[in-house]
Amino acid sequence: MSKSAGCCKRFLHYAFDYETPKTLVIPSLGVGFVFRFTQFLVVMYVVGYVCVVQKAYQDTDTVISTVTTKVKGFAFTNTSDTEPRFWDVADYIIPPQSDHSFFVLTNMVVTPKQVQSHCPEVSHCCYKTDNQSQGVKFIFHPGIQTGLCENYSTTARTCEVLSWCPLEIDTKLPEHALLVAAENFTVLIKNSITYPKFNFHRRNILPHVNSSYLKRCEFSRLTDPHCPIFRLKHIVSEAGEDFQDMAVKGGVLGILIDWSCDLDWWAGECLPKYSFRRLDNKHPVNNVAPGYNFRFAKYYKAADGEETRTLIKAYGIRFDVIVFGTAGRFSIVPTIVNLGAALSFLSLVPVVADWFLVTCSRKRDLYSRHKTTHLTEDADSASVTDFSPSLSLMIFSTD
Amino acid sequence: MSKSAGCCKRFLHYAFDYETPKTLVIPSLGVGFVFRFTQFLVVMYVVGYVCVVQKAYQDTDTVISTVTTKVKGFAFTNTSDTEPRFWDVADYIIPPQSDHSFFVLTNMVVTPKQVQSHCPEVSHCCYKTDNQSQGVKFIFHPGIQTGLCENYSTTARTCEVLSWCPLEIDTKLPEHALLVAAENFTVLIKNSITYPKFNFHRRNILPHVNSSYLKRCEFSRLTDPHCPIFRLKHIVSEAGEDFQDMAVKGGVLGILIDWSCDLDWWAGECLPKYSFRRLDNKHPVNNVAPGYNFRFAKYYKAADGEETRTLIKAYGIRFDVIVFGTAGRFSIVPTIVNLGAALSFLSLVPVVADWFLVTCSRKRDLYSRHKTTHLTEDADSASVTDFSPSLSLMIFSTD
Amino acid sequence: MSKSAGCCKRFLHYAFDYETPKTLVIPSLGVGFVFRFTQFLVVMYVVGYVCVVQKAYQDTDTVISTVTTKVKGFAFTNTSDTEPRFWDVADYIIPPQSDHSFFVLTNMVVTPKQVQSHCPEVSHCCYKTDNQSQGVKFIFHPGIQTGLCENYSTTARTCEVLSWCPLEIDTKLPEHALLVAAENFTVLIKNSITYPKFNFHRRNILPHVNSSYLKRCEFSRLTDPHCPIFRLKHIVSEAGEDFQDMAVKGGVLGILIDWSCDLDWWAGECLPKYSFRRLDNKHPVNNVAPGYNFRFAKYYKAADGEETRTLIKAYGIRFDVIVFGTAGRFSIVPTIVNLGAALSFLSLVPVVADWFLVTCSRKRDLYSRHKTTHLTEDADSASVTDFSPSLSLMIFSTD
Repeated sequence: MSKSAGCCKRFLHYAFDYETPKTLVIPSLGVGFVFRFTQFLVVMYVVGYVCVVQKAYQDTDTVISTVTTKVKGFAFTNTSDTEPRFWDVADYIIPPQSDHSFFVLTNMVVTPKQVQSHCPEVSHCCYKTDNQSQGVKFIFHPGIQTGLCENYSTTARTCEVLSWCPLEIDTKLPEHALLVAAENFTVLIKNSITYPKFNFHRRNILPHVNSSYLKRCEFSRLTDPHCPIFRLKHIVSEAGEDFQDMAVKGGVLGILIDWSCDLDWWAGECLPKYSFRRLDNKHPVNNVAPGYNFRFAKYYKAADGEETRTLIKAYGIRFDVIVFGTAGRFSIVPTIVNLGAALSFLSLVPVVADWFLVTCSRKRDLYSRHKTTHLTEDADSASVTDFSPSLSLMIFSTD
Repeated sequence: MSKSAGCCKRFLHYAFDYETPKTLVIPSLGVGFVFRFTQFLVVMYVVGYVCVVQKAYQDTDTVISTVTTKVKGFAFTNTSDTEPRFWDVADYIIPPQSDHSFFVLTNMVVTPKQVQSHCPEVSHCCYKTDNQSQGVKFIFHPGIQTGLCENYSTTARTCEVLSWCPLEIDTKLPEHALLVAAENFTVLIKNSITYPKFNFHRRNILPHVNSSYLKRCEFSRLTDPHCPIFRLKHIVSEAGEDFQDMAVKGGVLGILIDWSCDLDWWAGECLPKYSFRRLDNKHPVNNVAPGYNFRFAKYYKAADGEETRTLIKAYGIRFDVIVFGTAGRFSIVPTIVNLGAALSFLSLVPVVADWFLVTCSRKRDLYSRHKTTHLTEDADSASVTDFSPSLSLMIFSTD
Repeated sequence: MSKSAGCCKRFLHYAFDYETPKTLVIPSLGVGFVFRFTQFLVVMYVVGYVCVVQKAYQDTDTVISTVTTKVKGFAFTNTSDTEPRFWDVADYIIPPQSDHSFFVLTNMVVTPKQVQSHCPEVSHCCYKTDNQSQGVKFIFHPGIQTGLCENYSTTARTCEVLSWCPLEIDTKLPEHALLVAAENFTVLIKNSITYPKFNFHRRNILPHVNSSYLKRCEFSRLTDPHCPIFRLKHIVSEAGEDFQDMAVKGGVLGILIDWSCDLDWWAGECLPKYSFRRLDNKHPVNNVAPGYNFRFAKYYKAADGEETRTLIKAYGIRFDVIVFGTAGRFSIVPTIVNLGAALSFLSLVPVVADWFLVTCSRKRDLYSRHKTTHLTEDADSASVTDFSPSLSLMIFSTD
């Protein structure tokens, strides 16, 4: 035999000799049952809980979405404070278009015919008798103090300010909302979503719905759960609020669209789920500036070029369309990872059974003797301890 | 020997005696090959698929982003219906600024000089001869019915309504868009992103691009893939649509910016990928309110204080800039989890090889005999079954 | 014994016989220590790093949020270029309301009294002496060239354009911002978040904060870290910028709210963390259209019905409120997966210890001999190699 052939043979032995543990088969129903039952528990957990309940075999992606909204409805107001006025969508939706949210005006404090001028303040008294205040600046004053005192009314004198005059008086907000009819407005919400990882696109107007249905339907959880047209009153009452209450000082209302989907099954089952929740804090404790309002102005120019404006403090409900969701689809990597983890637990099962074998089974001494060989600590030659009588006997007899 | 010393020695034995399985080395090329091949398959899967293809060793984070857009261009319209008019960005971008989306007006129905008044309805006939309708309210009427009948034209009589008069007639939308020139407008999109988990910041204007290039470039997938200036016509045509078609009734067009990145390599390789997709449903079946439009008004005040408005039903294309992406970077936890799962599968390999050993190999009886020892079920003393002749012989001989 | 009983018995044996590896206990402190130490390392890694540091036992969810903002403050401007003017929130916040961002006007170029007309261009010279240009179109011209030449000033002649006239001259932007007082404006940010997977809702106004505190507090990282009212100057300076610098040409500033939470502990510990960062590129290199500005117009109608507009090129700071975060809560699936991976590594420990046993330990020959049995390749009957002397002796003696 040449040297290289011997070397090659040794490599073959090294690489392809198969080393396998020696095993002992124990015909004990008790131990066998413990073994199989523990195995069964692990397999049940993996199949039942991880796969069926948690769907851990799926890869997931979060939704990206686009929303358009279109409000319909009109109102006619005729209260004691204001002159009769007809309102349509161009009047009460501010700004006229935006994505993911829309604001419906329900109440307002109007201060018409403001011009850049000077006028007496509304609330801060001016005590100086010499007609000259010290001009102490408060940060939220409505204007720049000139240092002069003016007669605000026949009984009160206040500091004069440079500002848009006359000043806004927003303390006497009416108890009832101005646009009470707003609760009957409807909104059409079109929502288009994508799961980019799965190249999956959907719209909240479902494929099987036809145009004529869409023209007359109205969302109702029981009868029309997939109609994309919502009555504002319905939205607010599903959120557990009263529209007329909320309309007085305004608020923020979330229209939540949940697109959580299992894309493994027929994709037609991927449907939006609507829910509604008030998002601002309505309780006056630990709150500041309750409700929802903002100020804007309409600017006019008189014939002589002087700019006047109508300041509007607009109270209303901002509806935020919040789209969220996670889609899952079978993917090999999470499947492998979860199966691997399960296999690890299967490898724990013999540990449990072995422990049962050597501590709880009736013939534990017999099983231990055959399973385990103890080498003596100080043996110089091949010797084993007396804990393993059969093997030691064998060895002794062959001396 | 003292008692405590014995106790201590027993503890040392308990804690530090090492229990290792007895093994049998089988010099069979067949079994060895099966063993190594199965091992090879598992390692290949882990290295090749999990690590290289799926990058499962990475921790991931989703992008947060901010977008600013700036449209440039102007148009001159001179159709038979409208008077000549020059349009610049302040006229056709509504609202003038917003984040993540911008709307370009392309068509419109203008109703000028509306005042709060009463006028005959456009479409609902009024049949009552006694000049008094019952005032049946339809929800999408353009006003509040007064109960009176008016001559709408010489041939038709309709109900009188309280409303902004004259009423809008939006039925005769021209077949061609008004701002046909809008297709040549350009938009500069500035996008700044952050992966907060990795403290990674990027802009879509790349570091190596200089200002002079930015002033004259225009996005093109082949020649200028990283120019942040887009021609609207190009965006729409890449989405598979025709700009002039889309401009008539409006629509929603997504500008998708994909920032999916592998942050393990040189970060300069993390580049935005642009794609374009129409997001609304252009087919009239299962659709309602096709296209994209909204109403807004410009309010004017006459010298006598009467408020008039110009109502504009604006049709146009809303461009939604949708930024998404997931970044991955090496992290120890997913690496460990995936390696652990792979190791679990490696621990399956001996099971496969053992099965091959005792069922398929030529010398399976010999291997079985040496590998497995069978205890007899009713053995009281140390006894093994005849399935393991060599060992049983040994034991018998030592009796 | 009947046949079925035998069959049943064989099945019982097949299913419930327990096969366990034979083991050898080696009383070597060295090997035992290596074994226990490696085990300790793996357990430490799992407990210490994976569980405590990385919290890999948690399921995670990303935040969904809604934001409302309310700016307060006013300014008085009186520069040489402009007439004295008082500014309040309705003047400088454009658009008046939006979600997740607000724009504060700080500088502007106003072009009043524009009408649809024709006028000479600002910058492109008109060289033709015959009063007729060739009408070469440049894409960013401010209007449609009529083909005529006009006297722009006493020294220059430029092309005549159809446009809103007079044209805007935006080249001489003042060095100082107009609304220098804007740095003292304050903004109240109300943020409401949800982790839908955990049905967890929070507001950035904390439950223990009362209204009177909210009315007077101001955010400060040290003294008032949970006050939701921010001074604009403070925001900008925390982002490392100078407000007055930034106000001249505008910019985009991110208000980042991090809601990353560990929901396993008392939920009250889930608090927002604020940070501030400039999001646009302020360096003029590799930049185009630096700063942040947009154009909008106020439309007026004269008594004769002619429309005029005031064009405003508004420079200012857009504050983007960016809410992000990931919440984690104990969940059984990731726990199991991570424990499984750790167990896999524990199953590697004996491999390490075995390698130490047969290569490094003093009595490695003795241990090898007892641990491993070598079958000879060409053995026809039960035979083992001389590497395992004790067993081979046994077998030989029984021949």
